[in-house]
Amino acid sequence: MLYLIGLGLGNEQDITLRGLDAVKRCDVVYLEGYTSLLQCSVEELETLYGKKVIVSARGDVENKMDEIIDSAKEKDVALLIVGDPMSATTHISFLIEARKKGVEVKVVHNASILTAVGVVGLELYKYGKMTSIPFHAVAQGVTAPYDALFGNLECELHTLVLLDLDPVSNKFMTIPEALDVLLGIEEKVGKGIINLDTVVVGVARLGSDNPVVRVGTVKEVKEMDFGKSPFALIIPSKLHFVEEEVLEMWKC
Amino acid sequence: MLYLIGLGLGNEQDITLRGLDAVKRCDVVYLEGYTSLLQCSVEELETLYGKKVIVSARGDVENKMDEIIDSAKEKDVALLIVGDPMSATTHISFLIEARKKGVEVKVVHNASILTAVGVVGLELYKYGKMTSIPFHAVAQGVTAPYDALFGNLECELHTLVLLDLDPVSNKFMTIPEALDVLLGIEEKVGKGIINLDTVVVGVARLGSDNPVVRVGTVKEVKEMDFGKSPFALIIPSKLHFVEEEVLEMWKC
Repeated sequence: MLYLIGLGLGNEQDITLRGLDAVKRCDVVYLEGYTSLLQCSVEELETLYGKKVIVSARGDVENKMDEIIDSAKEKDVALLIVGDPMSATTHISFLIEARKKGVEVKVVHNASILTAVGVVGLELYKYGKMTSIPFHAVAQGVTAPYDALFGNLECELHTLVLLDLDPVSNKFMTIPEALDVLLGIEEKVGKGIINLDTVVVGVARLGSDNPVVRVGTVKEVKEMDFGKSPFALIIPSKLHFVEEEVLEMWKC
Repeated sequence: MLYLIGLGLGNEQDITLRGLDAVKRCDVVYLEGYTSLLQCSVEELETLYGKKVIVSARGDVENKMDEIIDSAKEKDVALLIVGDPMSATTHISFLIEARKKGVEVKVVHNASILTAVGVVGLELYKYGKMTSIPFHAVAQGVTAPYDALFGNLECELHTLVLLDLDPVSNKFMTIPEALDVLLGIEEKVGKGIINLDTVVVGVARLGSDNPVVRVGTVKEVKEMDFGKSPFALIIPSKLHFVEEEVLEMWKC
């Protein structure tokens, strides 16, 4: 049996009872390598589960798909995934390949950033494709987050922008830095989608039990204090009046 | 302290360790009345938590918002919510009202139907507004699900359609029944968005650990066996070729 188990968005305490029970039953436990998104160490996971956790980079997990599925023919194998296992296409391939090979799969769902962003109060079905800003965005002339924002705005969709982080070297992109990246691309590309007066939502610790949500113009949000990382931005598209009211309330 | 705690999509085992710990610490525990969506009884929840659970209809929870928030000034109060607490606007009002009253709120996230539908393999950000078909749709001339489908297709968005259920009287709308409702509305309204050749996805037990996903034309899907309820339909809009490939694979 192959278990695809979501770990949710916080630390080792965010696994479900069903998920923990399954991990404890497994002979082999893989963790997909987005460990930087976990607010705990691999050792803390191992202590809770009472077994060894094999950390595998995301690309590795894809490359090892056949091997992992085959091993689940005779053993109970868990693949742990930060967030919800079904939010990424890779894991759906696991389901389908396993089915082809006659290996049974059980998915244990959990919280995903795609619904945790609901805390902001904008309708979830009005979010377009999520994007992220990498540390090297300016140096490498990356325009992908700006392009994603442009595409979403064209379709009147909101945009969730995740900011890069590297807890090992204690580096976290801040909201002012991210806004400067977007303003910098705007200056070069000039499609007129963001400026100092654009209303944006700054968020810290989305999906944790103490998120901060603050709303203002780019100029205002750049001056706000969001406390500890990780950070994200939401750039709203056209707002329904109920959404406007909710954003207004976050200004209190 | 007020805790908004997601229960996830299955039974009492789908709460997270963080959520269970919080419930056990609370003096008063409310459960928002979507208990029909839980695959366990309120008694099973009470046994796990070791305390009384007060079931409150959804409208009641909204009406009681002030009372619940005020009681959380002096006590630890939990409001349990099926799925993820931040997928519905009501609960965001709780956050905002509590902030106004100076009451601290902790949200414990969990799985939501909005990401669990990811199992189908269509991009989550390409889903439009979710809709549902009530039992009395035909008798009462309800066209809302058809209208939602039309709106989503206009914007090239996929539609998740949840089918009504009433476990107390052991009634579950089946996929053929739901398709007949949509075909019936099509016949009257005639916008030409669904017919026997339209490709749709039938799903059973979405969010559980044994979902069934099957793809075919309306005519084909009406003949398929999906096993036990609850059921849902996905009516895809324009597909990216990767999405087409995934749907193709579900046909195997």
